[in-house]
Amino acid sequence: MLAFVVKNQALATTHKPVPKLRNGWALVRVRLAGICNTDIEILRGYHDFRGTLGHEFVGEVVDVGGVSRASKHKWLGRRVVGEINIACAALGFRDKCAFCRRGLKTHCKRRKVLGILGHDGAFAEFLALPLENLHAVPRSVTDEQALFTEPLAAACEILSQIKVSEFRSSRGAAVLGDGKLAQLIAMVLASTGMQVTLFGKHAEKLALAQSSGIATQQIRGDASDLKRKGMRESFALVVEATGSPTGLILAIAMTEPRGTLVLKSTFHGAAAIETWPIVVKELTLLGSRCGPFQKALTLLRTGKIDPRQLISHTFPLAEAKEAMKFAQQRGVLKVLLKP
Amino acid sequence: MLAFVVKNQALATTHKPVPKLRNGWALVRVRLAGICNTDIEILRGYHDFRGTLGHEFVGEVVDVGGVSRASKHKWLGRRVVGEINIACAALGFRDKCAFCRRGLKTHCKRRKVLGILGHDGAFAEFLALPLENLHAVPRSVTDEQALFTEPLAAACEILSQIKVSEFRSSRGAAVLGDGKLAQLIAMVLASTGMQVTLFGKHAEKLALAQSSGIATQQIRGDASDLKRKGMRESFALVVEATGSPTGLILAIAMTEPRGTLVLKSTFHGAAAIETWPIVVKELTLLGSRCGPFQKALTLLRTGKIDPRQLISHTFPLAEAKEAMKFAQQRGVLKVLLKP
Repeated sequence: MLAFVVKNQALATTHKPVPKLRNGWALVRVRLAGICNTDIEILRGYHDFRGTLGHEFVGEVVDVGGVSRASKHKWLGRRVVGEINIACAALGFRDKCAFCRRGLKTHCKRRKVLGILGHDGAFAEFLALPLENLHAVPRSVTDEQALFTEPLAAACEILSQIKVSEFRSSRGAAVLGDGKLAQLIAMVLASTGMQVTLFGKHAEKLALAQSSGIATQQIRGDASDLKRKGMRESFALVVEATGSPTGLILAIAMTEPRGTLVLKSTFHGAAAIETWPIVVKELTLLGSRCGPFQKALTLLRTGKIDPRQLISHTFPLAEAKEAMKFAQQRGVLKVLLKP
Repeated sequence: MLAFVVKNQALATTHKPVPKLRNGWALVRVRLAGICNTDIEILRGYHDFRGTLGHEFVGEVVDVGGVSRASKHKWLGRRVVGEINIACAALGFRDKCAFCRRGLKTHCKRRKVLGILGHDGAFAEFLALPLENLHAVPRSVTDEQALFTEPLAAACEILSQIKVSEFRSSRGAAVLGDGKLAQLIAMVLASTGMQVTLFGKHAEKLALAQSSGIATQQIRGDASDLKRKGMRESFALVVEATGSPTGLILAIAMTEPRGTLVLKSTFHGAAAIETWPIVVKELTLLGSRCGPFQKALTLLRTGKIDPRQLISHTFPLAEAKEAMKFAQQRGVLKVLLKP
């Protein structure tokens, strides 16, 4: 099958056998895959991954290994999305690690991660995932919508880390960044009734957020800009989702004393950060990664969030290299691959 | 009176008038002052402070401004320690800022801070503080012990930020750093029954911690060292109190997924930090600054903590410049000044 792997900091076309089926796993034909900023960071060296890239997908189950006839019947032909962390049990370990025992499978000590860590991903015709990772896509949710389940779940993770009620009465939340993930986060926070302002550099991306009813403010991106605009120490809740090393500096400046700063950006390399304001303001910083797929699917199914406007372009899978270049151009948001 | 101010990144001897007495304030004769790492950072440019340095002290009230005879009688001649943040009301503002209204006086938007921000400090014969900042020192607590109230309160702040019960059952807490504040933090955490290990570079400082019953481990101070010693991602609670930019990198590496990392170090300048592990491990980082004086005084009064072994040397106030040099020498812990 056609697959795109990471090689010399770029995507390389390759042909691989269809993944072997393991007991309790499904073989999934990829219907659509999405390019995430993490994919771009992986090409830059993040996690030193060499396999098939891609972790955002919607697909169709074409085979299931070693399960009952009923279970097979349940899954075969199903449209699915899949959680990307593959934990102890699914990897064949009889004993669970301390995190799996606590039910924290996304933090499994031995985990592999679809298209990120030790397991081939979605920029291919087929992929394999444990059945326990799969979620059936409701009929009313289109492929384009379902494709956003994984990043939308990551946005929803914030809701399980903060007490939303604490931030409803204040000036509201600031989301820093105007990329795909930032926009999904703003939508998710706004869906709880929270007042949300999205801060970004790109007028065209901010316009898109506005069309979803999100308040926006354009910034140049340095802390002096914040001072001029009276936004220093203004927000009890700030989400840093710029994907860039300078984002955290701005986010720290925007968060009021005793405020909460959620970190969403993962990028390769170090950022030069003055940490004393975190101490002096007694901020709470929360790292936030993968989230609940069911919550995301519910938001999609009920129409509370429709992320399709974030799609910039869909390329055939064969043109994945061009798609990756396109995804890194200014103003481009979600780029899809269609096998 | 004799006072030592910050000038050209060093201490300078000066003579100033005794501070003027304001209504609701006390004039305090300094009995002992302590040198804190923050003082050293201020000399390096932190906060750009130019006044009389010093915020750790024990003193005696020699005058009180504009209060009832009863209140005057209560305070005159009293041995006191003092909270260092001077908030709205004490500064004469009739309206309180949003933080003072919430009772968060240490985060007052208009605050001045003794020897740190806009208010002359304790490296002098006298200082002035609002009565609301003062705490009487119990008779059984010596001057040398009382001198530690401010940093001990800062250590106690951690107890008001975490749920101690959550960390009693796990492998316990790691305190990173072997300086004065780190040692006080280790004592405070251990006083709750928590299992604590202090990690530091200096054998002689670690030996001191051991003599207080704290487990210690010597490290070189880089993340590869942690890997070799099997300490990576080992602790549910890590307190970073090294006072150095590299401490946070180590602390992030030592904290297990979903763990809590308390930041105590304030230093001038930026640190180069890879932030993705905070996100991937979904860590909670808590900035932690000033804490409850009463809690600290209780720990001293009951003898649960006796920090006197941390005193390296006491200099006459007139030798403050020599004392400051001495305080920065390897192996030196708390240095006191006696007017």
